[in-house]
Amino acid sequence: MKHTLNILVNNHAGVMSHVSGLFTRRGYNIDSIAVGVTENPEFSNITIVVKGDDSVVAQVKKQLLKLPDVMSVVDLQYNESITRELVLIVVKAQDTNRIEIISICNVFHAKIVDMTEDTVMVEFSGNPRQVSVIVNMLKKFGIMEMSRTGQIALSCQSAIYNKN
Amino acid sequence: MKHTLNILVNNHAGVMSHVSGLFTRRGYNIDSIAVGVTENPEFSNITIVVKGDDSVVAQVKKQLLKLPDVMSVVDLQYNESITRELVLIVVKAQDTNRIEIISICNVFHAKIVDMTEDTVMVEFSGNPRQVSVIVNMLKKFGIMEMSRTGQIALSCQSAIYNKN
Repeated sequence: MKHTLNILVNNHAGVMSHVSGLFTRRGYNIDSIAVGVTENPEFSNITIVVKGDDSVVAQVKKQLLKLPDVMSVVDLQYNESITRELVLIVVKAQDTNRIEIISICNVFHAKIVDMTEDTVMVEFSGNPRQVSVIVNMLKKFGIMEMSRTGQIALSCQSAIYNKN
Repeated sequence: MKHTLNILVNNHAGVMSHVSGLFTRRGYNIDSIAVGVTENPEFSNITIVVKGDDSVVAQVKKQLLKLPDVMSVVDLQYNESITRELVLIVVKAQDTNRIEIISICNVFHAKIVDMTEDTVMVEFSGNPRQVSVIVNMLKKFGIMEMSRTGQIALSCQSAIYNKN
């Protein structure tokens, strides 16, 4: 089962390497990792998606909290959180298929951010399933380059609100 | 000066920790880091934004290429690349300012992905400057939670095309 861990850390050099080192040493399979600043510049937020059963993830959480620069670890539940990912894709294009590529992008409300005679660059953000779907749909034209950000997630206030 | 490095690595456990460790040991100041899969599942793409003059970055590049799992390092030029970042923001809201928050989101074409009586969750992707602007505009309402992905970048085909 996939778990999304939201890790709040001190914004120090080396924290990233300590956190990722912990996963490596224990052989945990990281699916995705994203690091960004938070509303407070003293803290960074690391979002890690990791595969493993509940007991393994509970153990990871415990280990993470032992690191001096880790402030908190939240294991976000799938149905109580909003997960998003961003992707940039350079797709091969020519006069015979450019309209089809643009139409697919319109369906997904993806933005076209660059274009040449031979290429189209697409920017898309959505949940990981949607990102996989658009990547699959564009694959047949030929993907020249692609960069994904890794997932970020926040707990969904409305889900928590409705539970109370 | 800020440099955006696009690092193509083998999708092995531990690569992330080696790459970030190299930056830590040398005291380089990482602004942002993003790791994601590429069009080929055997490779991951690490995008690092680092501050430093050209000679320092040339040295970092050389060190990175010595790591066994690093396939290539591209130093993307600002005016020849497209840089994007994704942010999720939970903003405090109430009946008296909800319309203002929604209007600001509309200006930036930001999506509202969750809403309660007291909160609005905003999803926005754009270049780092645009992300900072929307964060600044929403700050006055009170930001409860925020998560940013770190930047990804691809070279801009049209800029290269026009140069030739």
